[in-house]
Amino acid sequence: MAPDHGQPTELSPPDLAPQVTRLLARHLVAAEFESLPANVRHEGLRTFLNWLGCAVGSARHEAVSIAIDAMAPFSGPAQASILGRSERTDVLHAALINGISSHVFDFDDTHLKTVIHPAGPVASAILALAEYKPVSGRDFLHALILGVDVECRIGNAVYPDHYHVGWHITGTTGVFGAAAAVGKLLGLDEQQMVWALGLAATQPVGLREMFGTMTKSFHPGRAAQNGLTAALLAQRGYTSSEQGIEAKRGWANVTSTHRNYEEITGGLGVRNEILLNSYKPFACGIVIHPAIDGCVQLRNQHGLAAADIVKVELKVHPLVLELTGKKTPKTGLDGKFSVYHSAAVALIDGRAGEPQYSDEKVRDPAVIALRDKVTAEIDPAMPPDAVSVAVTLKDGRVLHLRVDHAIGSVDRPMTDGDLEAKFTDLVLPVHGEAGTAALLKACWDLQTFADAGEIARMARAG
Amino acid sequence: MAPDHGQPTELSPPDLAPQVTRLLARHLVAAEFESLPANVRHEGLRTFLNWLGCAVGSARHEAVSIAIDAMAPFSGPAQASILGRSERTDVLHAALINGISSHVFDFDDTHLKTVIHPAGPVASAILALAEYKPVSGRDFLHALILGVDVECRIGNAVYPDHYHVGWHITGTTGVFGAAAAVGKLLGLDEQQMVWALGLAATQPVGLREMFGTMTKSFHPGRAAQNGLTAALLAQRGYTSSEQGIEAKRGWANVTSTHRNYEEITGGLGVRNEILLNSYKPFACGIVIHPAIDGCVQLRNQHGLAAADIVKVELKVHPLVLELTGKKTPKTGLDGKFSVYHSAAVALIDGRAGEPQYSDEKVRDPAVIALRDKVTAEIDPAMPPDAVSVAVTLKDGRVLHLRVDHAIGSVDRPMTDGDLEAKFTDLVLPVHGEAGTAALLKACWDLQTFADAGEIARMARAG
Repeated sequence: MAPDHGQPTELSPPDLAPQVTRLLARHLVAAEFESLPANVRHEGLRTFLNWLGCAVGSARHEAVSIAIDAMAPFSGPAQASILGRSERTDVLHAALINGISSHVFDFDDTHLKTVIHPAGPVASAILALAEYKPVSGRDFLHALILGVDVECRIGNAVYPDHYHVGWHITGTTGVFGAAAAVGKLLGLDEQQMVWALGLAATQPVGLREMFGTMTKSFHPGRAAQNGLTAALLAQRGYTSSEQGIEAKRGWANVTSTHRNYEEITGGLGVRNEILLNSYKPFACGIVIHPAIDGCVQLRNQHGLAAADIVKVELKVHPLVLELTGKKTPKTGLDGKFSVYHSAAVALIDGRAGEPQYSDEKVRDPAVIALRDKVTAEIDPAMPPDAVSVAVTLKDGRVLHLRVDHAIGSVDRPMTDGDLEAKFTDLVLPVHGEAGTAALLKACWDLQTFADAGEIARMARAG
Repeated sequence: MAPDHGQPTELSPPDLAPQVTRLLARHLVAAEFESLPANVRHEGLRTFLNWLGCAVGSARHEAVSIAIDAMAPFSGPAQASILGRSERTDVLHAALINGISSHVFDFDDTHLKTVIHPAGPVASAILALAEYKPVSGRDFLHALILGVDVECRIGNAVYPDHYHVGWHITGTTGVFGAAAAVGKLLGLDEQQMVWALGLAATQPVGLREMFGTMTKSFHPGRAAQNGLTAALLAQRGYTSSEQGIEAKRGWANVTSTHRNYEEITGGLGVRNEILLNSYKPFACGIVIHPAIDGCVQLRNQHGLAAADIVKVELKVHPLVLELTGKKTPKTGLDGKFSVYHSAAVALIDGRAGEPQYSDEKVRDPAVIALRDKVTAEIDPAMPPDAVSVAVTLKDGRVLHLRVDHAIGSVDRPMTDGDLEAKFTDLVLPVHGEAGTAALLKACWDLQTFADAGEIARMARAG
């Protein structure tokens, strides 16, 4: 019998943890928008735009509809918009739902260093809040950048151990990002911010076991909702630990076998993690992006048609087969875990957006025929953002291509134009041409808005 | 760069985990109230009565008021009662708030084998639900017993490793108990129940670092709310893992270094963990109950007065000083972590209820004077529910007492009469004599209620 009882905070001796939580809180409270460099602000806009496009584009997904229906009887006043849909609900539930829809296509942003999808937990929380408590576009953008910084810094401190244990790091760090960003917009003082981070620490959400089910997209939504709750309680004086992150039985020690607190407190306000954010050109896990990129390039360079192809040979990073080795996917979601299907649609359609991962597409005889001609072999020396593709044609030619850095990686980022095209693809079916163009412009113009919540109302579908 | 991406469920080879989640779900769906032995039903009533008294008695605590105020703007329809208060709110928020109030005095029930406080997460969830979706008292009692069984079984499987890592096991297992109990009342089928347990697995709440702050009592409340959410989503078909508990990256492997799945699936429907539930006679951590019990007994046996006492020497289990070694507590909450203060009030007042842990009591010069005469020494051979007390009097006499099993332990349980007295102490200030007696009778008569939610409405204060 051990007691379920109080004890004083105790720091982990081997880590000699400084006051990580307090230093972070102090920085968040003091941070000023004016000191953000232009490239950081611009990356913030790219992050916001990409996130909004994903949320609107996925808003009709079954997981989103189910969550709305399940929560509706218990929801509060119509304070905030469900992006891409007609419903409005209370701030907490809007954060949950928009967080789900922004991730359900697996098409949102990625901090590759930690594989965190940073925007979902943060933007879903603050955009919902902004409709209840109006804030300027500049304050909104600042909170977004800070929230992303917080979650990625905390992720850096525990990655990869925390992820390898089995935590879905987007949800477990996202709650801190959401609490920090909401706390900034609420104007929390240092003590309140410390408590908000403590209340975030005690609510990690997300196991990797949930991948491949609707529950994966629940994680960023719930992280947004948990972070909001943390900040709202702290604002009223609900007390929490003073060292929620670094204490002996705090978040980092409990959820990870390794920690590097310097990643959290080093260069605060100088190093901005949002500069390492990246955006997916393809609607599937990042690990098969090089293969898709290579197939699309070969198709476009040589005007390939499926009928000309005898075989497709891929040499890939080991994780590709571990994670996406499904030879005969049955559903659209399965297809996202099949490098074979992905290569086939890349060669046939020249893209791998959400339509390439529909149930129909996965069952299309033409796709299946080409898919069965794709082989993938592990090359232990292949970097994770690289691939080698060889396509053998009926006329006997063999076309080779090596991708060193897949499109969308930090070394070969999507351009603003690429992001606009992706946004338009996602939003057009919901808002039509004029509405899509107006929403796109609003994202780029975020800093000029006196009321950032206006963008949420524009993104709502009538 | 590792991919944040899907992978098939993989079982942990060393554990050879059977289908833990599915077997548990199957049992929950099939379980029938009629097959519960009378002693199990009676322990369910004792658990419910003790929980309700704690929730009503603590309802005016600052933590409860703050949580109500913070959540009020976002809350839904007035579906469910806040126990001991006038407010009504939506089911989800009522579960959160009642879960907080039931634990905020640290006076609720304890499954000593795992130090889980089982009632908070489960009863808070199902009583709130019962006001929205009426259920009979028998179905309610059944769901409570099943929910307690689920969380304690899952706790048994990972205790003590999971707790030693730093998880507040009440919150991390409570979410399963709440999901199971709510799922039973919603009539989930086996597949839905599997998903509900998966959605619970991905939302553990509670770090031990939060002990000593308001966030500790947030844990059972949030666990109740998370479990409710899990079951509500699963009911609508929100998919989740099929092996949320036992998969390689499922709950048990991620949150504990050791697992024994036999504890979860062995003797389902035969072994009822609620029979191991216990109830606190004193409003503080279980670890100092033997010392309080010993001091109360000596006081009553010898008619001791503080003025007669020269010194008080305790020989205690090692954890007593590790966890409750505060020599000079400053606040009521501090006092709960002071074996010295606790011994002093036990000798002066003959009890250690919530009034003995008020700020005033901790600062009372008479209490401080006696407190400073108390010493505590570790006896490595002392069992955790035992203590040795020696009181030296002014007349030179030394009174000795050894407690082998503190009152409230499994070996020396509180009687039904003890529980009634505790309930009355807690509820009287809120509901007065007639109201308290009626509510007490309602608890014992739970099985006769056609609508269990009626008890929540009785417990609401006008």
